[in-house]
Amino acid sequence: MFTKQLPTGEKVCAIGTTETDQKLRLIEIPRRKVGTKDVRIQIQYAGICHSDLHSSRQEWGKTQMPNVPGHEIVGFVTAVGSQVSKFKVGDIAGVGNFVNSCGSCNECSHDMVQYCVEGVVFTYGSPVNDEVGHTLGGYSEAIVVNEDYVFSIPKNLSLAGVAPLLCAGITVWSPMKHFGVKTGDHVGVLGLGGLGHMAVKLAVALGAKVTVLSHSSKKSDDAYRLGASNFIVTSDTKALSAADRTLDLVIDTVWAPHDLNGISKLLQTDGTIVILGMGKTLEISPTTMVFKRIKVAGSLVGGLKETQEMLDFCGKHNITSDIELVSVNQTEKAWDRMLKSDVKFRFVLDIAGTLNKEAIVAV
Amino acid sequence: MFTKQLPTGEKVCAIGTTETDQKLRLIEIPRRKVGTKDVRIQIQYAGICHSDLHSSRQEWGKTQMPNVPGHEIVGFVTAVGSQVSKFKVGDIAGVGNFVNSCGSCNECSHDMVQYCVEGVVFTYGSPVNDEVGHTLGGYSEAIVVNEDYVFSIPKNLSLAGVAPLLCAGITVWSPMKHFGVKTGDHVGVLGLGGLGHMAVKLAVALGAKVTVLSHSSKKSDDAYRLGASNFIVTSDTKALSAADRTLDLVIDTVWAPHDLNGISKLLQTDGTIVILGMGKTLEISPTTMVFKRIKVAGSLVGGLKETQEMLDFCGKHNITSDIELVSVNQTEKAWDRMLKSDVKFRFVLDIAGTLNKEAIVAV
Repeated sequence: MFTKQLPTGEKVCAIGTTETDQKLRLIEIPRRKVGTKDVRIQIQYAGICHSDLHSSRQEWGKTQMPNVPGHEIVGFVTAVGSQVSKFKVGDIAGVGNFVNSCGSCNECSHDMVQYCVEGVVFTYGSPVNDEVGHTLGGYSEAIVVNEDYVFSIPKNLSLAGVAPLLCAGITVWSPMKHFGVKTGDHVGVLGLGGLGHMAVKLAVALGAKVTVLSHSSKKSDDAYRLGASNFIVTSDTKALSAADRTLDLVIDTVWAPHDLNGISKLLQTDGTIVILGMGKTLEISPTTMVFKRIKVAGSLVGGLKETQEMLDFCGKHNITSDIELVSVNQTEKAWDRMLKSDVKFRFVLDIAGTLNKEAIVAV
Repeated sequence: MFTKQLPTGEKVCAIGTTETDQKLRLIEIPRRKVGTKDVRIQIQYAGICHSDLHSSRQEWGKTQMPNVPGHEIVGFVTAVGSQVSKFKVGDIAGVGNFVNSCGSCNECSHDMVQYCVEGVVFTYGSPVNDEVGHTLGGYSEAIVVNEDYVFSIPKNLSLAGVAPLLCAGITVWSPMKHFGVKTGDHVGVLGLGGLGHMAVKLAVALGAKVTVLSHSSKKSDDAYRLGASNFIVTSDTKALSAADRTLDLVIDTVWAPHDLNGISKLLQTDGTIVILGMGKTLEISPTTMVFKRIKVAGSLVGGLKETQEMLDFCGKHNITSDIELVSVNQTEKAWDRMLKSDVKFRFVLDIAGTLNKEAIVAV
């Protein structure tokens, strides 16, 4: 994708992990020179996604070091290349899960860059021909990205709450659009976390009736406040029976092993369970699937065009993520709380306000 | 569905299992009087399906006795009710997996009677308000069925080879149509048995390129003869790698536990694995599904309209099942051979030629 090495333009502050250990610390990283099609974004906020923690802690295999996570990025445009047409200095801009793709495969040609057959270039951790050798993400002062992978942010939205739309938002939006959720449909949302709460908000705004399914009753009030019509604790067999054959689509945001057979009973004929978490092996009875033509499908974030559509839709419906703003020093603590689902509903790092050369290493 | 008890019209010969033991024997069963909307069919041939054996041997839980299997039925119309409009005496007619449904649910209203929410009335073993109390299938001289559940058989087709179209044929046709197989698509067929060989024939006739996937190399010649373009032994990792990302849809006809992850690698983005067998729990890695938006879907036989469409398509393309015709005395032997996949590709019982009062009990 990049045939010659990208020239370094500047050094910026970031927090990331290095070879030394796996604790986050303040580091300095190079950003490439702004190319003709590039946009430089001064990052204001970066959302915290589970992936950030998994990559930093090498839970998905060996992570290239240094590792700077962050793929829910919003900020202000501070420089644009000579051929940039979509952005000008001062615009509010966002970057999500990827920053490049082959651009020529069938997937790239049909707004499915996330499934690029050559392998999409993720915002952090993907090989790239620059000084570092791999991409570095949004836990940093600034980022330089080709404008095709940068999104316009509606001006009416609270900027910190926009950051999680770039991953959590699009990850639940894409399958709802792909599988045709429309007014009057009945959507189930399994798990009310960062992804789940966005799924409720977006499904409700799309005109769907929403049932939240959760392993505990703790989040019942939140579910109704977010717009759900029904809340079911997944161990409540009576409530599950009452919801038999009610759902058209289930957005399954749970990573931990869980029972798909129980969920599949809630589906109508031709219903779909969309798996978003890349956890352990899934188990499902073929009989359940056969007798209602049920589909279990995977889904990975979303395309470029549909991400912009989702952002515009959020602008129109005034939808942002419910967030807890934290300083960069608190990142690891936020990760630990996130692991315990102790967040309503997404942590966002106050990059512009707290990331500077005086930031303390976050241990 | 039947509010008052259906009057018995006649007694006919059948082979089935009774309370005494689970061996097939010659029995006499009642058939209801031909009602105003009914068609009486003098059965010529009945295909043998795996379900027949499973129900007779009570492998799917307790089977109501007597049990007369058979849901791949073809024969001649010998009587019609006063309000029958589609058939006249002498016509060639077929009956498949079901003989009634609620007729009013969303599924019944949209040619998906197989998914009737009230529960479709299967051709054998379903509760019904007649002398026996449950339906009795096609291993019998004659059957009486509402004309809405009876199909017209194209006259140009060899009748014995048509019988398996009524279950094996429609079971593979329905998902190919539902998931939109079209000219130029690449269809994988996992397992080359009764269902698999029909999937190859029908997919090829639909203009698709077909790859047969089998656990042994034995069926390679057959696969190519049936029209496949490629044949892969599922343990051949080199051949599997060469077929990476080639398939749009896989028709999975295998009941035994098998690796869906290996198969999913062969799929393109947005590919689908259609599960037809109701075997043990399926296992699949969510990661594979997520990174290509792969769907795993169940499918159960097919609707009434689409069954007639499939039969008409077979008439036009001169497609029937490759069969081995056996006498009713040989049924259990045929079942045992079927369990060992020792049949090319479907056993069909010569009902008209061998089922009579002198038939020996098949032990």
